[in-house]
Amino acid sequence: MYEGVVQDLIDELGRLPGVGPKGAQRIAFHLLTSDPADVTRLAEVLVQVKEKARFCERCFNVSQDALCRVCADPRRDRSMICVVEEPKDVAAVERTREFRGLYHVLGGAISPMDGVGPQDLRVAELMQRLSDGEVTEVIIATDPNIQGEATATYLSRFLKDLGLRITRPASGLPVGGDLEYADEVTLGRAFEGRRAVGA
Amino acid sequence: MYEGVVQDLIDELGRLPGVGPKGAQRIAFHLLTSDPADVTRLAEVLVQVKEKARFCERCFNVSQDALCRVCADPRRDRSMICVVEEPKDVAAVERTREFRGLYHVLGGAISPMDGVGPQDLRVAELMQRLSDGEVTEVIIATDPNIQGEATATYLSRFLKDLGLRITRPASGLPVGGDLEYADEVTLGRAFEGRRAVGA
Repeated sequence: MYEGVVQDLIDELGRLPGVGPKGAQRIAFHLLTSDPADVTRLAEVLVQVKEKARFCERCFNVSQDALCRVCADPRRDRSMICVVEEPKDVAAVERTREFRGLYHVLGGAISPMDGVGPQDLRVAELMQRLSDGEVTEVIIATDPNIQGEATATYLSRFLKDLGLRITRPASGLPVGGDLEYADEVTLGRAFEGRRAVGA
Repeated sequence: MYEGVVQDLIDELGRLPGVGPKGAQRIAFHLLTSDPADVTRLAEVLVQVKEKARFCERCFNVSQDALCRVCADPRRDRSMICVVEEPKDVAAVERTREFRGLYHVLGGAISPMDGVGPQDLRVAELMQRLSDGEVTEVIIATDPNIQGEATATYLSRFLKDLGLRITRPASGLPVGGDLEYADEVTLGRAFEGRRAVGA
């Protein structure tokens, strides 16, 4: 519908996840009228991300060096590993500032429907890391959905003979939410995991 | 939250219209794991669009040459000019394949709230184009909202002494819509503009 490069840009933008045809058009026109320096910077950072970004050799988080910032940080507690599905989950846990251990990114979750089995995840690499005896607790922080729960169940069985503490983050009511609007499963879990308060 | 270039990319993507922080992160991870050739192509097209794309000297549609594809096409009917707000409106009208005339892109609509007056739109350039006597009809296809209607009213008054036919696309019920769900103004316009049917 548009001429040459403008249509090319709309086509390329439309291939990005979460960007529909209207969104691609909107972004293209924004870029057309924006400062050339801004567009050049975006183009440069796209090239650089493919050149420089890679995955941490140890935990498979995104990284700019052989080891990611967390693995390379000597102040992190090396006795705990938090197992997550994707690098974005590392960022989510880091934002809480509650966890000072290390991570292990599985690269997905078990999902027979999508043809993803345990052999497609970085489970062997996790076992390798646990073999040095430094780790004492593994927190399985996969998503609280069917695939994530299946992955957590698989991992906890797989790891149970290693003599480690295996934990899973608590399920319950989201903070700031309404009890009335919680789904039955979440509310059920919240009751199951209730804690004594006060004195 | 992420390292170096990955965070840079998320920041840059997050500046695009309609892309929130979660969307920027999603796109960044998609690009991280996608074929380097695809990312290079996106980077190249971004650079090219700023180098090659410009605005048509006559109608101010986006173009790759001095004149856009529509203005340069000898088969277009030069007696009609369709006035629109933005280049994306040209694309929308072109998709209908109903209009074979030329366009004029105003570059916005009158909006006192945003400090946009008639002098900020390409009205003088439109007058210049109408002065050669070749044009006999001007279709004012600004958006059917407050700003677009104000612009249409302004233009129709401004042009009324030129002896041209001044028209506006019909307002009415969208095809495929439900009468029940039409807003009062649209339904009112649809009744006002009703047409005789059959014989």
